[in-house]
Amino acid sequence: MSPLRHAASREVCIMKKIDMHAHFFPRISQAQAAELDQVQAPWLAVNANGETGQIMKGAQPFRPVYRALWDPQLRLQEMDKHGIDLQIICATPIMFGYEFPAAKTAAWAERMNDLAMEHCAADQARLKALAQVPLQDPELACRTASQAKASGHHGVQIGSHLGARDLDDEHLVQFLIHCAQENIPVLVHPWDMMTDGRMKKWMLPWLVAMPAETQLSILSLILSGAFERIPESLKICFAHGGGSFAFLLGRVDNAWQCRDIVRADCPRRPSSYVNRFYVDSAVFDTGALRLLTEVMGADRIMLGSDHPFPLGEQNIGKLVADSPWLDSADKQRINADNALDFFNIDTEGLNNGR
Amino acid sequence: MSPLRHAASREVCIMKKIDMHAHFFPRISQAQAAELDQVQAPWLAVNANGETGQIMKGAQPFRPVYRALWDPQLRLQEMDKHGIDLQIICATPIMFGYEFPAAKTAAWAERMNDLAMEHCAADQARLKALAQVPLQDPELACRTASQAKASGHHGVQIGSHLGARDLDDEHLVQFLIHCAQENIPVLVHPWDMMTDGRMKKWMLPWLVAMPAETQLSILSLILSGAFERIPESLKICFAHGGGSFAFLLGRVDNAWQCRDIVRADCPRRPSSYVNRFYVDSAVFDTGALRLLTEVMGADRIMLGSDHPFPLGEQNIGKLVADSPWLDSADKQRINADNALDFFNIDTEGLNNGR
Repeated sequence: MSPLRHAASREVCIMKKIDMHAHFFPRISQAQAAELDQVQAPWLAVNANGETGQIMKGAQPFRPVYRALWDPQLRLQEMDKHGIDLQIICATPIMFGYEFPAAKTAAWAERMNDLAMEHCAADQARLKALAQVPLQDPELACRTASQAKASGHHGVQIGSHLGARDLDDEHLVQFLIHCAQENIPVLVHPWDMMTDGRMKKWMLPWLVAMPAETQLSILSLILSGAFERIPESLKICFAHGGGSFAFLLGRVDNAWQCRDIVRADCPRRPSSYVNRFYVDSAVFDTGALRLLTEVMGADRIMLGSDHPFPLGEQNIGKLVADSPWLDSADKQRINADNALDFFNIDTEGLNNGR
Repeated sequence: MSPLRHAASREVCIMKKIDMHAHFFPRISQAQAAELDQVQAPWLAVNANGETGQIMKGAQPFRPVYRALWDPQLRLQEMDKHGIDLQIICATPIMFGYEFPAAKTAAWAERMNDLAMEHCAADQARLKALAQVPLQDPELACRTASQAKASGHHGVQIGSHLGARDLDDEHLVQFLIHCAQENIPVLVHPWDMMTDGRMKKWMLPWLVAMPAETQLSILSLILSGAFERIPESLKICFAHGGGSFAFLLGRVDNAWQCRDIVRADCPRRPSSYVNRFYVDSAVFDTGALRLLTEVMGADRIMLGSDHPFPLGEQNIGKLVADSPWLDSADKQRINADNALDFFNIDTEGLNNGR
């Protein structure tokens, strides 16, 4: 049974829950991955039981995973279990390939994007995809993004930085301007976390550095003045509730107010830019979600789970549901309406089982 | 006029505001600093007007500063202006000297600690000091901490890490155990921020990496299981509201619940350790302070300003005052009572103008 809910009028489809932050990783062997890179390319080692496996980076295990990551049938079953009407999937960031030659990454991205569409073909009404792009070559990245949109992708996912270049890098800003002009929504996902050689245990890079990377990518756009040059039409969303951003915005505003070098390239108070981007709801704590809503507004938050990873929301949508200070209109916005707008999702098509 | 408030009984001194996070930097010349290191030691270049200056690191300007940093008379005037009864000063972290030979740093720390006491001598009732220690040599650090306590210091301040070693390093844990056994309160201050060569502008290391360093230092004690080995009597406080810790605690709890490698060395849910440490109130946003209070409890937060730096609270105590959801008992705890207990401050002595 599809959990799509139909209102009295057959023309209106009321979406209850769209999960806009979910990952996939296709079943590609080490031999197939070698086309990207013989030594370091990521691939999937599925265990004999077919249920579990490892994402591998070359010969090194990277992360234990299970079947919902590559099998859309199990994904759909889990969506049913959680009452998710529609899920938007994107690459696992280790698939980005930004560190390899751009032409190889472009071919790889096209292949991964095709595999994402294949994954979604299991139920085109309930599964949508974001494309990956060869961000190390902005021109190729723009072309890949536009092609992906034409072939049915609902936006792109990019990493929060590119080696030493943060999002204020002029080439990356040009890519974002392209996405604004072509109405291609962008999800920014942290990856390649700074650690300075520390944080070797307990997943500290995921607990400390990932949220810092996301905060850094947002502040790079704000404090550089990049948001002044990027069209307001850009739809850009940051994963994990924007990382540490919301909690530290007061510290940033105070620094902007009190230090010339903080406001050198940013003409307006940093907090005045919160209407230029979105965040997902993956913050795992009702108090944190409350602060996030105070900072961003319920119009700027979208349900996102990080499914099917263990560091994702295990009971998708429970955090929003368990927030009594959100009224039903706010919940509807966060659970579905914001994502429908952000990702240009055609609900009429959904009604027709498209 | 001293803002110390006396109640009806002469024995009772009601402290209204204790600012427990404030920095000093003594007037030391480059020649004097050369005893620590000829090239890299920090010193103070005061401008001709005597009002402003630069903290220098060798020949490089590090930060513009003003007279309240080294002149206790101006500090006391500013405390009057903000209604601060008592301020606890500590070194500016660039003074730590952890990167130099331990014996030199021990001598330097002793000198800086004497200068801190000299600064406080301007009004012994209203100014108290935390000592610095040569943390790179745990035995020397323990000895320096005990000597400093005997000479009138109210605790120690340490950096949030020591090169590649976070607070779970066994030598650093031994130092903390010593402080617990000797009833020496510890303030942990972020410094030496990870940047991976990025964050070159807009004070991003202070806005992104500093709060991440503080979160990392707290998680290092929790996830390593160090809090299980350290006596519960340890009084330890983390600056800047614990950095990103409070906002990300839900993410950490979820990771601990769902990944074996996160809970490998930590027997209990990470959030269950919040009763093992304190934080200051320097979060610059009422929503952030509200979340901080929900996570830590009003018993675990102490007014701290980062005075007299531009990234400190400019109107000391205003954030707490402007938080209507804190009742007057909570405010009293945050503004003064918690710090009186934490730093073992003898209020009777205060009454006698000690």
